[in-house]
Amino acid sequence: MSASFASIITIGDELLIGQVVDTNSAWMAQELNKIGVSIKHRVAVGDSWDDIWSALDEESKHASVVLITGGLGPTSDDITKPLLCKYFGGKLVVDEATLAHVTNIFVNRLKRPMLESNSKQAEVPDVCTVLFNEVGTAPGMMFEKDGTIFISLPGVPHEMKWIMTNVVLPLLPNKIHTSNIVHRTLLTAGIGESFLADLIKEEEAALPSFIKLAYLPNSGMVRLRLSAEGENKDALFELLSIHFEKLKAKVKEYLVIDEDLPMEAVIARQLKENGKTISTAESCTGGYIAHLLTSMPGASAYFKGSIVSYDNSIKTNVLQVPKTILETVGAVSEETVRIMAERVREIMQTDYSIAVSGIMGPDGGTEEKPVGMVWIAVSGVGKTISKCYYLHHNRERNIQLTALNALNLLRISKCG
Amino acid sequence: MSASFASIITIGDELLIGQVVDTNSAWMAQELNKIGVSIKHRVAVGDSWDDIWSALDEESKHASVVLITGGLGPTSDDITKPLLCKYFGGKLVVDEATLAHVTNIFVNRLKRPMLESNSKQAEVPDVCTVLFNEVGTAPGMMFEKDGTIFISLPGVPHEMKWIMTNVVLPLLPNKIHTSNIVHRTLLTAGIGESFLADLIKEEEAALPSFIKLAYLPNSGMVRLRLSAEGENKDALFELLSIHFEKLKAKVKEYLVIDEDLPMEAVIARQLKENGKTISTAESCTGGYIAHLLTSMPGASAYFKGSIVSYDNSIKTNVLQVPKTILETVGAVSEETVRIMAERVREIMQTDYSIAVSGIMGPDGGTEEKPVGMVWIAVSGVGKTISKCYYLHHNRERNIQLTALNALNLLRISKCG
Repeated sequence: MSASFASIITIGDELLIGQVVDTNSAWMAQELNKIGVSIKHRVAVGDSWDDIWSALDEESKHASVVLITGGLGPTSDDITKPLLCKYFGGKLVVDEATLAHVTNIFVNRLKRPMLESNSKQAEVPDVCTVLFNEVGTAPGMMFEKDGTIFISLPGVPHEMKWIMTNVVLPLLPNKIHTSNIVHRTLLTAGIGESFLADLIKEEEAALPSFIKLAYLPNSGMVRLRLSAEGENKDALFELLSIHFEKLKAKVKEYLVIDEDLPMEAVIARQLKENGKTISTAESCTGGYIAHLLTSMPGASAYFKGSIVSYDNSIKTNVLQVPKTILETVGAVSEETVRIMAERVREIMQTDYSIAVSGIMGPDGGTEEKPVGMVWIAVSGVGKTISKCYYLHHNRERNIQLTALNALNLLRISKCG
Repeated sequence: MSASFASIITIGDELLIGQVVDTNSAWMAQELNKIGVSIKHRVAVGDSWDDIWSALDEESKHASVVLITGGLGPTSDDITKPLLCKYFGGKLVVDEATLAHVTNIFVNRLKRPMLESNSKQAEVPDVCTVLFNEVGTAPGMMFEKDGTIFISLPGVPHEMKWIMTNVVLPLLPNKIHTSNIVHRTLLTAGIGESFLADLIKEEEAALPSFIKLAYLPNSGMVRLRLSAEGENKDALFELLSIHFEKLKAKVKEYLVIDEDLPMEAVIARQLKENGKTISTAESCTGGYIAHLLTSMPGASAYFKGSIVSYDNSIKTNVLQVPKTILETVGAVSEETVRIMAERVREIMQTDYSIAVSGIMGPDGGTEEKPVGMVWIAVSGVGKTISKCYYLHHNRERNIQLTALNALNLLRISKCG
């Protein structure tokens, strides 16, 4: 029996006019991949009866599982449930467990009277298996037709995730044949995609046909991913790892980490392993570096705090950057970031600190200090290093790149 | 002639295994919508010859424009260009303008020798129109077949955006019939989707069939969007606005703004209009509120800075929260956030300030102070208000919701 393919159909006009970015699909794909289900196709359609109907027809031709998100809300633009009821030839009946759950949410948690639209949430087609939704009022539903499994889930991300994690992912391996998919990813910094490809061309040519190599460039860093799919997970992983180690050895000069981790997680792990702490003094990034460093659970083990000195008065009053420096070389200067880094490290009593000051755009640039220019300093015991960068993107991306460059400078600086 | 529909095909295994979230499609859809092109379908396929080929066949059946992103890089997993060359029956030739541009990037900007894979970037099918890429090495390409336009663009977001903005969007209205699409969106806070639907049921029933209403719930707020498509833009807008004003009047108690703006932009505008400044003292949000407030151009007009006091020592040493308070009622308490807010407002000399302290999870909760409990204070001249919230999501979403609730508390507090 060959591996099962899945398709994802996302429903909602908001996805087609770009009012909402679809983050559900990526999360679903990752989780399905872990249990050995490959996604071959992903489709987004609007809140249109005909378009949803055709998508169901079309996707079920190729996939053994069709996952559908969206259109299950209590309002009139949500047509997925009546459509599925008709598509699978059922009629709507009240699901008592869901009704009890919805009633409980309104009576006990929200302390509000239930509307007719709310109790309607408990109606489901009599031809489906109800997938209980602990964290919301719209239940998931599972249908089977001509050997294909159809799973309908709410589009609200945390509700979809709850049902997937607690109901769908445990249930799927009993319903379809799942194979093993193995990935190994490494992260490089400081080398472009084409130069990286040139560097590893022999290793790439030596890959057997069932191992795929992908280059994933993002924010000045490139991830390399090896993937293979097959029956024997251990043998597959072992063979993949032999090729992975060769790649790793070849790129060692640029290697950040041999796992699929974002830069902030790499930094967090290093700090935790070495029992070190960090603080930041941020001007142009406005707290974004601190946000990245605290986005992971357990951040209090290594992160103490930050002073966001967006206005120059904060640089002088809180970080004690001398006014003369701001008046002569200015806020975007090597002198300023070095003092910011050293002062925040003293104030917060941390082992390391990071400071940034730059011009993120779109306005505020001059001929001497153009938009995209940013000074970064990293300070450790007895040593402060600093570096100037020139970025060429929009404000959002310049802020992200400044944060990544700052974290990478800390990583390679071995301060302290 | 009826309106033109477009399809978007995104190419790349990384999209199907969920390693990357597709943000390109939403941006493209928004921009196409502005020039009167509706997206009816969006498809994601992997780096597979057959799957890309079928997607081209399938999408061109229904769409007058098929936009394709991804698979144009210099490495071996990028197969879009040879595939398109074969699909449209052409052969690869060097585009001199692109070659000159790529050479210039390597010789003058990167100061590196060009690799064979780099000069290959300048090869294009002789049956395409080249869409110049000022900001990267892979040019866009346009093909025409059986009345359908095909546009292939790089998957790197800033390159795709540059070519769309400077080449594709100005060119499309000459190639296809575009209609007018009008949207008006309002943002509500403090009312659930079903209660909102119940509140506006008469207004919704009164909508003519060509005006569509959508409910877009997100992070404890609901956006309502009215849309219509037609030929006469002014008449369409006027009619839509009559219904929009009725909706607005009905939801006025919950109305945040009658535009499609995120909460931080609403706050930024209010502060700028009133010439007021703000600062934040953040514990559990780790700088995320400051990041939101500085994500927009011109933030220096209203935002002065932030003290991220993640560790209790920063709360006592920098924000001067008395140790006795931390030892008795604790860091997650009304007393602590009120002092944090008042102190940061003094230190930064701002008109308003926001302070937050809570437990974002997954660990750190107790019976008395569970994960998701957060205290928020807003301070203005002579007045500080504070409120406790209980959130029920994962760490990432708890941080986002805390920030949104804090900004909303500032909005409704009318401090000062």
